[in-house]
Amino acid sequence: MKINLNGTFIDRDEARIDPLDRGFLLADGLFETIRVEDGNSTRTDRHLHRLSHGCDVLGMSFPKALKSAIAETISANKVSNGVLRLTITRGPGPRGVLPPKEPDQTVMISVTPSDTRPPNPMKAIIAETTRRNEFSPLSRCKSLNYLDNIIARQEANDRGADEALLLNTAGNLAEATAANLFLVIDGMLLTPPVSDGALPGVMREEVLPDAEERTLEPGDFARASEAFLTNSLGVRPLVTVDGVPSGAGVPGSMTKKYLDK
Amino acid sequence: MKINLNGTFIDRDEARIDPLDRGFLLADGLFETIRVEDGNSTRTDRHLHRLSHGCDVLGMSFPKALKSAIAETISANKVSNGVLRLTITRGPGPRGVLPPKEPDQTVMISVTPSDTRPPNPMKAIIAETTRRNEFSPLSRCKSLNYLDNIIARQEANDRGADEALLLNTAGNLAEATAANLFLVIDGMLLTPPVSDGALPGVMREEVLPDAEERTLEPGDFARASEAFLTNSLGVRPLVTVDGVPSGAGVPGSMTKKYLDK
Repeated sequence: MKINLNGTFIDRDEARIDPLDRGFLLADGLFETIRVEDGNSTRTDRHLHRLSHGCDVLGMSFPKALKSAIAETISANKVSNGVLRLTITRGPGPRGVLPPKEPDQTVMISVTPSDTRPPNPMKAIIAETTRRNEFSPLSRCKSLNYLDNIIARQEANDRGADEALLLNTAGNLAEATAANLFLVIDGMLLTPPVSDGALPGVMREEVLPDAEERTLEPGDFARASEAFLTNSLGVRPLVTVDGVPSGAGVPGSMTKKYLDK
Repeated sequence: MKINLNGTFIDRDEARIDPLDRGFLLADGLFETIRVEDGNSTRTDRHLHRLSHGCDVLGMSFPKALKSAIAETISANKVSNGVLRLTITRGPGPRGVLPPKEPDQTVMISVTPSDTRPPNPMKAIIAETTRRNEFSPLSRCKSLNYLDNIIARQEANDRGADEALLLNTAGNLAEATAANLFLVIDGMLLTPPVSDGALPGVMREEVLPDAEERTLEPGDFARASEAFLTNSLGVRPLVTVDGVPSGAGVPGSMTKKYLDK
């Protein structure tokens, strides 16, 4: 794997992150996970738009020429189908919480080959260990602060599930640890609004014209005829929640419409 | 600066964090900031106890022989007075949110010489940009997820203050971005409880026997005769909040008791 580190291609084993990088020390940065298909990144403009918003929230400058850097990284690694990760951090800095006035940002792009995943039905739990903070602007950014999601995903694993759904601090459904949530209730496609702590997912945006944003609570699964999860890598049916079949417990007809996204 | 990276001393310019370290990619780790005085780390047991609790929350193993590694790092850098940072992460791993089953953890210790800071009076604002998530177990850990604190500190800087106080999601006072908060009201020393989102600070623990944990709200500053902030580096008087003098606007007699901590 050749990593694109600040514009230079370096073997993964040689690539070096500075131990004083604020991304490493304080999670002071953002990332995007982008699907690669037939040698091309997909939904690139949407990803970069979200990243640009994140830069505004963090007060970071938006790196130049990311689109060509993404294409070059895919090409340098000769990846046809896979997953690309774009990471930007505030770079190294002296001790302290406040970022340096003129940060020397780190831009890292890596790409891993992988088959396009089959739309495996997913089992989820509702996380009891932690909740999503809808009061933080970071709930609207794909930031490096991913540890709540990791804890919730570990809980899912411990409880024999594939994914964890996160409630927000009000006890309403926000999203999954690495995906957005959609429910079909009374024939309507519904998803939690961003103000409830849903990350504005790139695939979510694509499904949104067919859906309505509505505050959803765990009890709504009992009324749902179908449920599915979306992220940049695809759409996957959600067939059980806390061990209870969601809808018919098999992918429904609305869900199937989106499975090849 | 010689960094202790997994037990080996390396010049900072040579030390390499793997670009796939989960600490860098997902903030999957913890840290401690420890004061060094006269060539010794201070309150080391308290720091390691908190770190050990954090490891339990994250499901990480607690690294061995940290105490001697800390002493060796201070000694290798010939630091008499300064600040030591101990960082542990889940180490490099394959793509994905779930940690690897047998993580190869990263342990990094660095130390920066600095004079013991004078107890400068601090000006704080109450952050409007973000809030602390008291529903997350990470509010009780010193985790790498520091970006909310960074955003709040940037807001403080923009508004001409030194520190930002974070409210929790219920609108009560939790802590500052890098310190705990104490108020004196009716002659009583009060501090927000950990259940309100206060990090269990090492210096806070030391002051706690003299204080009472109580839910505090922004309006309580109007009733406070004194206020101060504590962290591992020391105790500092808080003299204004949102531009309004806190207490008499100068360090009070209760505060002075703790200034030489």
